[in-house]
Amino acid sequence: MVIEEVREVQQKSLTYEKAGVSIDAGEELVRKIKPIVRKTFNERVLTDIGGFGGLFDGRFPDMKFPVLVSSTDGVGTKIKIAIETRRHDTIGQDLVNHCVNDILVCGARPLFFLDYFATGKLEVYVAQSVIGGLAKACEENGCALIGGETAEMPGIYLGEDYDLAGTIVGVADRDRMFRRENVAEGDVLIGLPSTGLHTNGYSLARKALLARYTLNSPQAALGGETIGDALLKVHRSYLRPVQHLLEQFDPGTDIHALSHITGGGIVGNTSRVVPNGLTLNIDWKAWSRPPIFRLIQESGNISEEEMRRAFNLGIGLIMLVPADRADAIEHALNAFGEASVRIGNVIRS
Amino acid sequence: MVIEEVREVQQKSLTYEKAGVSIDAGEELVRKIKPIVRKTFNERVLTDIGGFGGLFDGRFPDMKFPVLVSSTDGVGTKIKIAIETRRHDTIGQDLVNHCVNDILVCGARPLFFLDYFATGKLEVYVAQSVIGGLAKACEENGCALIGGETAEMPGIYLGEDYDLAGTIVGVADRDRMFRRENVAEGDVLIGLPSTGLHTNGYSLARKALLARYTLNSPQAALGGETIGDALLKVHRSYLRPVQHLLEQFDPGTDIHALSHITGGGIVGNTSRVVPNGLTLNIDWKAWSRPPIFRLIQESGNISEEEMRRAFNLGIGLIMLVPADRADAIEHALNAFGEASVRIGNVIRS
Repeated sequence: MVIEEVREVQQKSLTYEKAGVSIDAGEELVRKIKPIVRKTFNERVLTDIGGFGGLFDGRFPDMKFPVLVSSTDGVGTKIKIAIETRRHDTIGQDLVNHCVNDILVCGARPLFFLDYFATGKLEVYVAQSVIGGLAKACEENGCALIGGETAEMPGIYLGEDYDLAGTIVGVADRDRMFRRENVAEGDVLIGLPSTGLHTNGYSLARKALLARYTLNSPQAALGGETIGDALLKVHRSYLRPVQHLLEQFDPGTDIHALSHITGGGIVGNTSRVVPNGLTLNIDWKAWSRPPIFRLIQESGNISEEEMRRAFNLGIGLIMLVPADRADAIEHALNAFGEASVRIGNVIRS
Repeated sequence: MVIEEVREVQQKSLTYEKAGVSIDAGEELVRKIKPIVRKTFNERVLTDIGGFGGLFDGRFPDMKFPVLVSSTDGVGTKIKIAIETRRHDTIGQDLVNHCVNDILVCGARPLFFLDYFATGKLEVYVAQSVIGGLAKACEENGCALIGGETAEMPGIYLGEDYDLAGTIVGVADRDRMFRRENVAEGDVLIGLPSTGLHTNGYSLARKALLARYTLNSPQAALGGETIGDALLKVHRSYLRPVQHLLEQFDPGTDIHALSHITGGGIVGNTSRVVPNGLTLNIDWKAWSRPPIFRLIQESGNISEEEMRRAFNLGIGLIMLVPADRADAIEHALNAFGEASVRIGNVIRS
């Protein structure tokens, strides 16, 4: 009786923990990710001069006119695939690589990255796995993971569901940026392959596929891979091949523009770099699509038009180059181990 | 019969729209927010050189050693109050002001901001209202809203629920940054008032208050305000008073450190800028707390210790200043129209 009363009083006395926010889990997570995150640091991260983090050397002495290029993004409903398959280690790579490509098409290289991870209930191993993926991709792209926020928000996210967003800041020398005004009639479109859907079209893909299949059923049409495997393929970063090209070719004269193929598809994204009076002439038969796209199209009975609008269809980045440079650029890409395919050209509209 | 068949085929043929992603709403939103966002731009936003946005002048010729200071944050479960009261116009201000303060305590002024807005179903008026709040606070803080992502994620967010996060990038001259190593025995703690909870402790506050009250019931204890009014009070930006001080006082000699009071409370946050061997001596009776805190404490039967850990209790920013500068600094603050209160000092531990 007395014990029961005590218990009731204890329960009535509210604490942060009882309100659903795990302070201990937060501290454990910070302890676990610190060494992983530190590995992404370089000499430009100024940890010595402040205890709050997020400090980065802002001097660019080798640039005439440094331009800070930044982008914020999420991974859309690809996050549902990670949650449903309980494979949390690659979604962070998707996010970082997506952001790297977004600033790369302006001609910028990454400097630093900050993430936002929000969940209903903080599970340390899940958050650690997600942030491990972020750190891995940051390291691969020479980008410091200098900040972030982990939020526990019961009532917004269900249970262990989570969302992930991030911001990249990079730098470009103004005179070495791509300029869409250079895109001209006759320019050739060189496509670089994607690994799959990257991070776009997942709401449509899930609706189409999951009405008929489960995520973990192996598919003959995918060479025995499961749907989950195919949908979780990591969004590629195109930083290395593009940086390699920029050692030999000049942005502006040799490469007119780049286009990162995200929501809106090949035409939607590439049209943004094509000046008025010109348009795209795409040869849709020029490459073979990864089999996951056919499976999606057939399962959902999706029109070809809708497929082209929602998905990259196997092309993750497009370069718009003068016709007389196309051979040399393709040669350099192939020598670097990068497949490429001419998928069309720029014509008068 | 024929009509029914046609209808069935149409329904079976999936599109992005049918999968729950409203492309038209997205386009309408972009059209509506463009002029609002443009108002935050200044001459350092380089819109002319690219169609992708997010380009910012990276030259700082008046600084010896520019340091880029960045921070990512969300607004925690304060977002639930905005959603439940359907008052979406201030939550963006909370986020921006929070981020401004986070970099201000390093000595940085804001340059630009990027937001992430994710929802289950994109309601244009809601998103417009939220982004309007972001833009308002960006303008007030001289910060350009140069990028962002709006994501529609049915299956992660319920219905019209949403989450909001953001990233700020600012700049500080390395020689003009606050250095916690300067904090010394005898330093005086000058507190600047908060408007209420700012953006911390909402899970606990909701649990405590909403077991007894509704958000829209006026409270005598709050001078007739509703609980919702009190909980939605906008997180203050301390940029203006601190900038004003820095015109007359020197960071380093006159102001040793600043502390932004967020999760962890006065002690948790301010301890981060106090060197080893020293500790904080807080006079908890030195100021009167806004009435919302007593209401929370009584409703939830929350211990004083837990209150101090979860909430700012009426003090949003603390300055650690040498005792012989405290009078002059308080005088300057008061002349600027800023209330201040001495809440303690730094002692040997």
